[in-house]
Amino acid sequence: MTKYAILGFGTVGGGLAEVMAAQKERLAAVAGDELELGYILVRHDYPDSPWQDKLVKDFAVIESDPDVSVVAEVIGGVGPAFEYSKRAILAGKSVVSSNKELVATHGLELAAMAKEHGVSYLFEGSVGGGIPLLRPLSRCLAANRVDEVYGILNGTTNYILTAMDEQGQTFAQALAQAQKLGYAEADPTADVEGIDACRKTAILADLSFGGNLDPTAIPTTGITALAPADLELARALGYAVKLLGRAMRRQEGCLAFVEPHLVPLGHTLASIGGVMNACAIRGSAVGEVIFCGPGAGRHPTASAVAADIADAVRHRKDPMIPDLGKAGGALVPAGGLISPWYVRAMAEPDEVHAVFPGVKLIYGSTQECGFITPPMDEPALRERTALLDSRAALRVLA
Amino acid sequence: MTKYAILGFGTVGGGLAEVMAAQKERLAAVAGDELELGYILVRHDYPDSPWQDKLVKDFAVIESDPDVSVVAEVIGGVGPAFEYSKRAILAGKSVVSSNKELVATHGLELAAMAKEHGVSYLFEGSVGGGIPLLRPLSRCLAANRVDEVYGILNGTTNYILTAMDEQGQTFAQALAQAQKLGYAEADPTADVEGIDACRKTAILADLSFGGNLDPTAIPTTGITALAPADLELARALGYAVKLLGRAMRRQEGCLAFVEPHLVPLGHTLASIGGVMNACAIRGSAVGEVIFCGPGAGRHPTASAVAADIADAVRHRKDPMIPDLGKAGGALVPAGGLISPWYVRAMAEPDEVHAVFPGVKLIYGSTQECGFITPPMDEPALRERTALLDSRAALRVLA
Repeated sequence: MTKYAILGFGTVGGGLAEVMAAQKERLAAVAGDELELGYILVRHDYPDSPWQDKLVKDFAVIESDPDVSVVAEVIGGVGPAFEYSKRAILAGKSVVSSNKELVATHGLELAAMAKEHGVSYLFEGSVGGGIPLLRPLSRCLAANRVDEVYGILNGTTNYILTAMDEQGQTFAQALAQAQKLGYAEADPTADVEGIDACRKTAILADLSFGGNLDPTAIPTTGITALAPADLELARALGYAVKLLGRAMRRQEGCLAFVEPHLVPLGHTLASIGGVMNACAIRGSAVGEVIFCGPGAGRHPTASAVAADIADAVRHRKDPMIPDLGKAGGALVPAGGLISPWYVRAMAEPDEVHAVFPGVKLIYGSTQECGFITPPMDEPALRERTALLDSRAALRVLA
Repeated sequence: MTKYAILGFGTVGGGLAEVMAAQKERLAAVAGDELELGYILVRHDYPDSPWQDKLVKDFAVIESDPDVSVVAEVIGGVGPAFEYSKRAILAGKSVVSSNKELVATHGLELAAMAKEHGVSYLFEGSVGGGIPLLRPLSRCLAANRVDEVYGILNGTTNYILTAMDEQGQTFAQALAQAQKLGYAEADPTADVEGIDACRKTAILADLSFGGNLDPTAIPTTGITALAPADLELARALGYAVKLLGRAMRRQEGCLAFVEPHLVPLGHTLASIGGVMNACAIRGSAVGEVIFCGPGAGRHPTASAVAADIADAVRHRKDPMIPDLGKAGGALVPAGGLISPWYVRAMAEPDEVHAVFPGVKLIYGSTQECGFITPPMDEPALRERTALLDSRAALRVLA
């Protein structure tokens, strides 16, 4: 029998206690041992909770209980989450986490500490929510040199883009609807500005290319500037608009960025609507595989964290620590990446064709036109769009 | 340093030797030990092979070498592959396999033997080729009661259906093209009759529901009876035609079958073209996740087998044997499953509406019409289509 503790009793923490109880047997089979909830670290009282007798407010109780061998950190943020994670590892406990901010910024340090203290450090739930993604990437695809990872890594923005596309809403309308339904937070900045997707991109890039990128250095554009006209014109041109995090292996390091893209309607990523996520991995042996599913939510995220708990227990004598690489990897500028581009412009056909000869134009309901350019890098694009009354330019996934 | 052997030097065996050599370091990190190719079991001479000094024709050489701790069986079929697998396990060696026929028919026996002898038995490459699928299903989703698995599990038939759809070919034309390109074998029976998909469905069902189904008892319909008109009418109605293997948890056992289905064009499975595969898993905590990628091929399948070799070495002291359940699980008849249906009929609108009131009709280039019925079970459908000159009926994935 192995005891574990849950740090945090919010959405994921509560869901985790439920999921662990509901699938006790199956988890025990994978863990090779029965798993018993020891404690839940809380800040408030929960007099009606069925786990009343497990709630503690002082982390030291968990830290000092030698029977607790795994700690699930689902607090979020960097402050107490980071401190408790370090203290748990120092106390010889494995740490599992769904906290992308913490993993993206201090994951390497925690992984090194875990290695030193002979415990596991796992964070499947930090990217792609419930989708099994990091374990397949780092273990199942071990026979591959990973060359590229990219995907729809944030459910809130994908919900907003889907609503703008299907219901013709503005960004503000779709955001308000997402907030009403609980898919966006009161302060949506981290989601809509792409910061959440950027953290997940950093984790994927670190696992794939080992550069341990500083997430704040990754060029990141969110979806706040997108107009309904962009979604309308994109669809008429045969594309869906998706916020993609992308990272590619380069000789000099890793090229990584987060930007809204036009994705061809036949592409699997274009079929991912609402709060769903999807991540594609290109490997030297396998080619391309794509993993799709719920990227957030109470039980999906708990599903990923619970599997990490079971895996940490299974590997008590042989700790599991995904390789986040070495600090100081080079971030290659994204501007040089050659792609076709979507451009929206207020321009007559002959004005456009003077700059972009032969492109096919679509005129939408706003009297602006949209078109797809031949492949070129960003400076070449900017040089040309400066000659037009261009209103938007988005990269096309080719 | 750990020695492994490859049984079979066909497409997958050759690809496996290449992949293991190309990603030696990454595989060693996952395995926790360096991996060295000991032998390749061959039937013929390969004087030009770079692995010349590793080729042996007598399995006893491998069997009796105590340094070989993992054997990769990529021979296929049930005869020698089954015998060698048993002998390897009896000799205390882990066995990994991409052989769906063997796993579907004798997997339970081999798993029990492996358990008894303290070795691993892994078969990631047997379903979905290079897509990480079985390990995510049985380990990453350990916190879920799996309720349903379904997917496009055969690349040959998906290639044929894609060609019929996109190029308007007949089944015979598309098959001939697939054979010319090496996507279909000279005797395509196992693929086009759905037998290959059925074996994979059985493996997925066993891992998900533990019934250890007899694959030959699973109701299986291939794609040979599909007409170009079906793909044309399906598309006009907003669907793609896909051969799906499906298995669902039922109180009385497992409901499993293989049939061509109409899949809504917005569904992720509809975006899977050519030889690609995709598998959806519905779990109690995660909801639905979908895994897509190359379902066959030299390097993709080798990618899966190589990861199994590394995992078997990593878990030498703690063998990995996915749970295929117990023999004798009940197979629930599929006829009772309620679905909408696609029907193709040579009939005037009033004839159709007399039997299926209110359905929307599409007339194609053959003067036949196609329509989607309300949800009903198969006997109810047959009772009604008997009243029409109906030419085809396919289940709709709803």
